[in-house]
Amino acid sequence: MAKINNTKDILIELEQVLIARKSADGNTSYVASLYDGGIDVILKKIAEESAELLMATKDKDNKQIVYEMADLWFHNLVLLANENISVNEVLRELDRRFGLSGIVEKNNRKK
Amino acid sequence: MAKINNTKDILIELEQVLIARKSADGNTSYVASLYDGGIDVILKKIAEESAELLMATKDKDNKQIVYEMADLWFHNLVLLANENISVNEVLRELDRRFGLSGIVEKNNRKK
Amino acid sequence: MAKINNTKDILIELEQVLIARKSADGNTSYVASLYDGGIDVILKKIAEESAELLMATKDKDNKQIVYEMADLWFHNLVLLANENISVNEVLRELDRRFGLSGIVEKNNRKK
Amino acid sequence: MAKINNTKDILIELEQVLIARKSADGNTSYVASLYDGGIDVILKKIAEESAELLMATKDKDNKQIVYEMADLWFHNLVLLANENISVNEVLRELDRRFGLSGIVEKNNRKK
Repeated sequence: MAKINNTKDILIELEQVLIARKSADGNTSYVASLYDGGIDVILKKIAEESAELLMATKDKDNKQIVYEMADLWFHNLVLLANENISVNEVLRELDRRFGLSGIVEKNNRKK
Repeated sequence: MAKINNTKDILIELEQVLIARKSADGNTSYVASLYDGGIDVILKKIAEESAELLMATKDKDNKQIVYEMADLWFHNLVLLANENISVNEVLRELDRRFGLSGIVEKNNRKK
Repeated sequence: MAKINNTKDILIELEQVLIARKSADGNTSYVASLYDGGIDVILKKIAEESAELLMATKDKDNKQIVYEMADLWFHNLVLLANENISVNEVLRELDRRFGLSGIVEKNNRKK
Repeated sequence: MAKINNTKDILIELEQVLIARKSADGNTSYVASLYDGGIDVILKKIAEESAELLMATKDKDNKQIVYEMADLWFHNLVLLANENISVNEVLRELDRRFGLSGIVEKNNRKK
């Protein structure tokens, strides 16, 4: 199950790749062309992928759901890199608000 | 920096929590109320959070970007749980298409 | 078929109603509560109605398509009123870019 | 002010144009290429234009708001034509739920 261990790191690994692409050529790198296009180009992609995720779900096409969600998350990571925000901040926010740490914290507060 | 290690597992941990909530009461659990509402309720939340992410980005409010992206990913995980899709499938798809494994694979193919 | 004649003016009529509501109480008027909520509240509604239109279309539910599109256009008109933009400007832009006037204009240019 | 009179008919006029394009060649007509692409292509355009309207509004760029809203309405009309729904149905729904006719009707009911 080495694959499962990988899942942890793929977001961090992708983050490193996306940061490295900031100095790439927009004519040869898709990601660099997004950075060059500016924030509206990235946001438009996020809106598109979000809509495609909706459509795939309405089509009850699980393979397509996975495909479109990966696309959506990828362009979310591009947005984070563009804004110099670490993906760890999003994961910590998920943990804080929705995860077990959050639940433990709330329980401690009640004491 | 135990927190950083946690980031690895938060998606998997959340997935477990979300699966467990499937048998919870929609009147007391927010997540159960989403499952009870059906797929359109979950998709509407995803569309909303996606729009709020756009607005936070246009406002150049990094704290709000983190907040809305966590919200968007959380409701993505709810969708996966509702459709019985593992989050690992999305992470593997990210790796396959955008990650280093994908790049390595492509390089190997060229040999 | 007086109703059909009405269709012509409903957008203009609604515009008048929406402008008048600007001085209404947000506690008693839905439209005034949107103005009070600020531009993000109106934009969030537009994103929601847009997503609901997508879902109704995927459901092949024509009655729901009409319902959601009316909702979407209504909140578009609220946005215009909030920004002090006349609906006639949108209709003229439609005519200019997509309508017969536009086509005639393009033909004249070719002479 | 003949232009203002035109505003009434532009939606109906566009509807006629869009219906006529159903028999056009997708290689030469943009609208026919949308029909050929199928409903997901049209819905994706609607999601895109909706997101661009959000961005134009956040930019406080009134000219761009008008431009993007015209785009959004145009692709809404393409959707209607594709689904064989008359634009009059949407206008009547707007009138029924939000217009003066609706208000008059409600008042009469109260008598």
